[in-house]
Amino acid sequence: MNEESTVSLLITNARIVTSTDDYIADVYCEHETITRIAKGISPASCAAGTEVIDANGKLLFPGFIDPHVHVYLPFMGTYAKDTWETASRAALVGGTTTLIEMICPGKGDEPLGAFDTWLGKARGASACDFSFHMGVTRWDAQAEAQLREIVSRGIRSFKVFLAYKGALGVDDRELYHALKLARELGVVVTAHCENETLIAEKQAELLAAGRREPRWHEISRPASVEAAGVAHLMAFAEQTGAEVYIVHTSCEDAVLAAQRGISRGVRAHIETVIPYLTLDSTYAEKAGDNGFEGAKYVMSPPIRDRRHQDFLWDALRARTIATVATDHAPFDYKGQKEMGRFPGSDFTRIPNGIPSVEHRVDLLYTHGVATGRIDLHTFVDAASTRAARIFGLKNKGIIAVGADADLVIYDPAHRGVISAKTHHMATDYSGWEGWELKGRSSVVTVRGRVMVRDGRFVGDTKHGRLVPRS
Amino acid sequence: MNEESTVSLLITNARIVTSTDDYIADVYCEHETITRIAKGISPASCAAGTEVIDANGKLLFPGFIDPHVHVYLPFMGTYAKDTWETASRAALVGGTTTLIEMICPGKGDEPLGAFDTWLGKARGASACDFSFHMGVTRWDAQAEAQLREIVSRGIRSFKVFLAYKGALGVDDRELYHALKLARELGVVVTAHCENETLIAEKQAELLAAGRREPRWHEISRPASVEAAGVAHLMAFAEQTGAEVYIVHTSCEDAVLAAQRGISRGVRAHIETVIPYLTLDSTYAEKAGDNGFEGAKYVMSPPIRDRRHQDFLWDALRARTIATVATDHAPFDYKGQKEMGRFPGSDFTRIPNGIPSVEHRVDLLYTHGVATGRIDLHTFVDAASTRAARIFGLKNKGIIAVGADADLVIYDPAHRGVISAKTHHMATDYSGWEGWELKGRSSVVTVRGRVMVRDGRFVGDTKHGRLVPRS
Amino acid sequence: MNEESTVSLLITNARIVTSTDDYIADVYCEHETITRIAKGISPASCAAGTEVIDANGKLLFPGFIDPHVHVYLPFMGTYAKDTWETASRAALVGGTTTLIEMICPGKGDEPLGAFDTWLGKARGASACDFSFHMGVTRWDAQAEAQLREIVSRGIRSFKVFLAYKGALGVDDRELYHALKLARELGVVVTAHCENETLIAEKQAELLAAGRREPRWHEISRPASVEAAGVAHLMAFAEQTGAEVYIVHTSCEDAVLAAQRGISRGVRAHIETVIPYLTLDSTYAEKAGDNGFEGAKYVMSPPIRDRRHQDFLWDALRARTIATVATDHAPFDYKGQKEMGRFPGSDFTRIPNGIPSVEHRVDLLYTHGVATGRIDLHTFVDAASTRAARIFGLKNKGIIAVGADADLVIYDPAHRGVISAKTHHMATDYSGWEGWELKGRSSVVTVRGRVMVRDGRFVGDTKHGRLVPRS
Amino acid sequence: MNEESTVSLLITNARIVTSTDDYIADVYCEHETITRIAKGISPASCAAGTEVIDANGKLLFPGFIDPHVHVYLPFMGTYAKDTWETASRAALVGGTTTLIEMICPGKGDEPLGAFDTWLGKARGASACDFSFHMGVTRWDAQAEAQLREIVSRGIRSFKVFLAYKGALGVDDRELYHALKLARELGVVVTAHCENETLIAEKQAELLAAGRREPRWHEISRPASVEAAGVAHLMAFAEQTGAEVYIVHTSCEDAVLAAQRGISRGVRAHIETVIPYLTLDSTYAEKAGDNGFEGAKYVMSPPIRDRRHQDFLWDALRARTIATVATDHAPFDYKGQKEMGRFPGSDFTRIPNGIPSVEHRVDLLYTHGVATGRIDLHTFVDAASTRAARIFGLKNKGIIAVGADADLVIYDPAHRGVISAKTHHMATDYSGWEGWELKGRSSVVTVRGRVMVRDGRFVGDTKHGRLVPRS
Repeated sequence: MNEESTVSLLITNARIVTSTDDYIADVYCEHETITRIAKGISPASCAAGTEVIDANGKLLFPGFIDPHVHVYLPFMGTYAKDTWETASRAALVGGTTTLIEMICPGKGDEPLGAFDTWLGKARGASACDFSFHMGVTRWDAQAEAQLREIVSRGIRSFKVFLAYKGALGVDDRELYHALKLARELGVVVTAHCENETLIAEKQAELLAAGRREPRWHEISRPASVEAAGVAHLMAFAEQTGAEVYIVHTSCEDAVLAAQRGISRGVRAHIETVIPYLTLDSTYAEKAGDNGFEGAKYVMSPPIRDRRHQDFLWDALRARTIATVATDHAPFDYKGQKEMGRFPGSDFTRIPNGIPSVEHRVDLLYTHGVATGRIDLHTFVDAASTRAARIFGLKNKGIIAVGADADLVIYDPAHRGVISAKTHHMATDYSGWEGWELKGRSSVVTVRGRVMVRDGRFVGDTKHGRLVPRS
Repeated sequence: MNEESTVSLLITNARIVTSTDDYIADVYCEHETITRIAKGISPASCAAGTEVIDANGKLLFPGFIDPHVHVYLPFMGTYAKDTWETASRAALVGGTTTLIEMICPGKGDEPLGAFDTWLGKARGASACDFSFHMGVTRWDAQAEAQLREIVSRGIRSFKVFLAYKGALGVDDRELYHALKLARELGVVVTAHCENETLIAEKQAELLAAGRREPRWHEISRPASVEAAGVAHLMAFAEQTGAEVYIVHTSCEDAVLAAQRGISRGVRAHIETVIPYLTLDSTYAEKAGDNGFEGAKYVMSPPIRDRRHQDFLWDALRARTIATVATDHAPFDYKGQKEMGRFPGSDFTRIPNGIPSVEHRVDLLYTHGVATGRIDLHTFVDAASTRAARIFGLKNKGIIAVGADADLVIYDPAHRGVISAKTHHMATDYSGWEGWELKGRSSVVTVRGRVMVRDGRFVGDTKHGRLVPRS
Repeated sequence: MNEESTVSLLITNARIVTSTDDYIADVYCEHETITRIAKGISPASCAAGTEVIDANGKLLFPGFIDPHVHVYLPFMGTYAKDTWETASRAALVGGTTTLIEMICPGKGDEPLGAFDTWLGKARGASACDFSFHMGVTRWDAQAEAQLREIVSRGIRSFKVFLAYKGALGVDDRELYHALKLARELGVVVTAHCENETLIAEKQAELLAAGRREPRWHEISRPASVEAAGVAHLMAFAEQTGAEVYIVHTSCEDAVLAAQRGISRGVRAHIETVIPYLTLDSTYAEKAGDNGFEGAKYVMSPPIRDRRHQDFLWDALRARTIATVATDHAPFDYKGQKEMGRFPGSDFTRIPNGIPSVEHRVDLLYTHGVATGRIDLHTFVDAASTRAARIFGLKNKGIIAVGADADLVIYDPAHRGVISAKTHHMATDYSGWEGWELKGRSSVVTVRGRVMVRDGRFVGDTKHGRLVPRS
Repeated sequence: MNEESTVSLLITNARIVTSTDDYIADVYCEHETITRIAKGISPASCAAGTEVIDANGKLLFPGFIDPHVHVYLPFMGTYAKDTWETASRAALVGGTTTLIEMICPGKGDEPLGAFDTWLGKARGASACDFSFHMGVTRWDAQAEAQLREIVSRGIRSFKVFLAYKGALGVDDRELYHALKLARELGVVVTAHCENETLIAEKQAELLAAGRREPRWHEISRPASVEAAGVAHLMAFAEQTGAEVYIVHTSCEDAVLAAQRGISRGVRAHIETVIPYLTLDSTYAEKAGDNGFEGAKYVMSPPIRDRRHQDFLWDALRARTIATVATDHAPFDYKGQKEMGRFPGSDFTRIPNGIPSVEHRVDLLYTHGVATGRIDLHTFVDAASTRAARIFGLKNKGIIAVGADADLVIYDPAHRGVISAKTHHMATDYSGWEGWELKGRSSVVTVRGRVMVRDGRFVGDTKHGRLVPRS
């Protein structure tokens, strides 16, 4: 891994679509980057052995970027199922060529140790490129020094949890200092915004009243509690001047709270994730398996009432919502989600997350572009380009000379069906089992190397590398 | 004019900056378009006679687009000073390669006749490319039929005035039908949003109280009256489903009114203009020339209190404001602005407008990019790309293979000073007389033809053509 | 009528509840007013012949005021069913002792003539006291002069319609001048806020699509169109400085629009009406009578989705909503509502209104006080006191020495049922047929005269008089 | 003290003004309460020895209530200057007949002990009536049990500090439980809303930068930090269902945050205090005494920019702001405010507060009623009645039979001047030194006893008692 690829590649007749452009040309890649874009590039003008792929009738997109995933994820004595091998393979099959993972150290862990641990899991194991958001879960002189060191190593974003106090969450003092340091270093702070106490107290009340089924999860974390978290972050960002990024925004209330901050001058970006755009609260209420099936859909913030979904699509179209990520957190239904099975256990013990890194792009295309809710430019911008710009992935998210040759030849005519039986993620279920997909990433390259061909993974799970960031 | 240029051009070593990209490459243009972008294009590979320009150390931008100008503008028995010759030359010297002019027929005029009149003024006289927003100032079967015809000729945007009732303004019924037709035809409706009656009545009260000086202009059209106009448009856009574009937004109140509509799902874009970003209400209060100097700064909506300027810059950075145009409306101070000189006349008779088509780009660079308020991507997006996308100028606003070779080689190290003595616009004054500029468009091309060299116009005032729109 | 009553009355042991007070005392009335409030008033200290009523166990309220009714109401060649005899009797049985009627002159009518017409219908025919809001439906020198005259006769409020353009509605110029005059004279302007054009165009579209049933009425006048009307009024009130009163507010959107104006300093009061607090859009969708039964519930603005009802109750409790009126407009179902029966006719021809003057107070008590949604003070304030203060009914709406002896002895233990068979209004149906009522006005007095006893009308339909206003 | 007064009193010819009423009558008081209100009460009908006061030409108001004062206030090793003798005397001379004091136990104190301490300071020492808001500064089983006991003793309101964390402030868990208990017991929670961490960190930064003068106090606690506190409280109130009361609201941002909560159904009341309505940030910037004079005006939240003052008056008129209190906290300038004198000390060590209990009513009359900003009803409601209703002072705040005979005969024609030389508070300065007052409380009674006559205190400083609350 990580030695420069000598492969060269010529993609011809592509309809190239980016955040702003839509044109037909040939693209030539060598030394891992795009070096020529032109009309009618002659194979003869290319290096010997150049592979030529005719993209006629297909769309050519910049490789998609998922700026919010979990792969290595310890949880209550167990671990999320994916490894970087499985996760990166699934990502690539789904058109995603770069993942940004959350590093989530425990309160007692040293940041640098955690960074090394997380990096060690990905390095040499990932087929796609990757970076990290460095979780800030404590604040002292040592932690600050190590965070500075980690930033100097190219990790130019932090992650803070306003929820999960005691575990991962930061208190107000820690939040303030993390934001000040971020402001000083020019680093973006990503934030999980929910008020922890309101959730913890509500959960205690629900459990005391015997309410243990998965459907109570949403009741325990209402939209107003998420909006309160966002408003809190906005106040801290306003005072510190830090640039912030609100992860997995699920509802109108939270978006409006963010917009009020932005109107006051706060530099904030809003992310939503694919489950909120395609699922609604009726899924978490599913009656199957004696009422436990809803556990498949337990994530935080929870999947909301349908009216929020319509709002999110509109806000995505209006570009109020900057990015569509996944918050991929892959736990099995059997054995893992079941840790929260009632009546012996309860919804608070269900591992949070919906495996989704593989299907984000196709679901967004199918339910966004194919339905007319968003156009192709917005699709590319939200699923790739904007994340690259916000997080300093200078050579990603675009199709331009000098950029990394991360490319997706997309076939909008393909029809497929999602199933846990065929997906590449390590989990035993899919939240979208049986859903039809319109479109597929036929060919996917990472820095010029073809990783997916005819929708099948043909790559090398050691190819990925840590992306330099600016 | 309008026969395809056979000139070919190679720009080397450019730092290319677009809405999303920032990279170094060579750009080759022939047949009016960009045909190759690559590292190290050999002149030998280019057509014979290709001009080579080394852009080392400079920035290369897509040609800038001003989506809101007036050139041919009859007003109270006089005319705005610029012709397409002077206006397009000034635009090009300032880096603007495409103008979209407002066609403003009188209430009694036939749309098609007006279209022909306005087109006739530009065709054969413009050095830069151009298109139009078709003013809708009446509504009847004939007008509707002619509007359909005009759209079929490629004019894919309308303009309505909520202000200027009786003259150019539409009533609610006309507004509704214009929006419905726009929705049907997929056309964007640009709108001047101020409540006319509130202005007219306030002006009558001010004049009755003997308040005739230019500084009363702003008092007669407060921010709340502009916001009321925006709210009105949002309600009509919501009911009709039309896509709208709010021209020359001057204040926080109006932006917030637009955002409330957008949050309800209205497809709306917000434009501001360069005067609002650089001037404030103290200019309209200037005491020179016996208190009449402020007339130079009379435009509608008026230039606001300083706090609105700060808000607009923040909203531009946050991309809440989509575009920065000019509302160029070039009247002389002597003889024209003076039509409203008190005490014999009054502020309501001062021709509205500030000549600005030449300095928009440099003022935005100087006060936006050079001060750190916005980054280069936002600069390009707001002054070029976004207008192209909204108004269907498919081959403009980008640097991509197949796009029109409208290019600006920008020298950020250049220092200049604005002065009416040296500017290219036909007017006898500048609202920014003596202001320093940081940066200059050194070379400007329109479809591959070099129109500006070393900051001087070297082009052909017949080169411009009507831009095809999709 | 109108000669001072010589009756004297002593009410003992009453629990007196007003907007702010809650205490037990005796109340003595003579010469039409309250002259003594004290503990243990001895009958011996009262005038000979004083009637003594023991109110032990009952509540004593100030007479209720309905500030928004129609009695004389010409409509499309027919007339609303009530006369002042029937309407005032129904009002009194329901505890309402003062009505304020809308005078609605046609565009061509002279204001003074209309005033005389409307006054002539009430004078000598009303059992309860009354006043008027003077409809402003045109604006010229004559109209202005006559409006000044009408105000000088004690009619200290105007009514304008932003809807019903062409018929009753005012244009922006008329609205501006009505508000300026109101500001000058210290008169409140009540306003029906809906954008007329948006409704008219939507109705034309619905009818063109064959949508004629009553349930389309709500679709034709959505919440956003009402909110647009309110925002429009706020802008005009802000510019003119006039005090305004928004009649029959039906939805969250409109209340929020009003609050935005109030936050900018506009002096505005918000009214809702009893149908919006107790009915929802499912009533207008009733399937009975071949789908026409919903016609009973057609009023404008229309009855909304249930979530608005919850919002309105909260806003009433928070005192954001100042008053609860009726917009009583009594048309028969047979023969009148049926003018809009499809397929031969359509929903736009259904006379607007729900007969409700009789049951407002009991419905508000039953669904507000008895359910705990509002307390007794809010009940009295919203249904009586606030209207008196806003509209200058100085001696109404309170229980105080010197105030008119308009009193209601209310029995909260009484149980009744609404039915068209037993109600006192002239219409052939009730929108609340079969609904249970908790509470009843057992005794009702107007200026010391007992008009209702044991819930039965025992009064004189000539007793009412035009209330002096300050 | 506390034995029922046998004094009887007849006030004749008074113009009685309450929240809703305005009429002329005589008022007779015996056994501490009002027993008769009538026209022309004959002295002969009164008890022997009844004092008769002719109030002709004066206004008669219910005794004013200040729901937010500090009297016993330990602070950094010193104590606020007033005792209940001085504070209650000053209150009465200023027309205030009831004070509600904040009980502020330290984190380690037991609630019941604190209650006894605070009660002990007032009992037997206060000339006016009084009650308390019980400060909740910790949460455990013992604290909860004692809070229940305190509520059962008639203290039906809590106080929480979102600011002053570590000292008086509560964390989120404590806040949640305080609100839940309040909801269960039907008790209102008053709250000081500022985000503590944002203030503490900003203060540390300012001090590190050598910014020690009083004028930095406002910079350290900006409006957005106060609004963040209010938004936080709204979220907690929404989730718990508790009724809340936001003390000393100083700015538009905070009011709007509260209104957003109220629109979502939160039961919240907004208080402002007299300094915010009459002073602005220029006072805290006063240059006298080598730049330290501004210390006189240091309170929290700080006094704001003038535009907030205008907003607060409008919001008071609109009744969005429910009450006008003082937050009276009386520290001397010499020796106490000077604890924060720079350069040796700094603004964070200036005791917070402006002595104001004496002049609230007159300042509100002078700057509110006499200028036309508010009417007499709003004046009475905001300064008396509303506080009584919110806090369950059933027999206060009204003029009604059975109510406590707390009465103020107010002379609007009196002209006075504020001065520390003549005021009754124990402090050595006034924030309004030399300001003219229009109006004075000429006669003030507490439960029928005359405490102030001709503006001079003539009462008994043992007369006050703990007010029973419902």
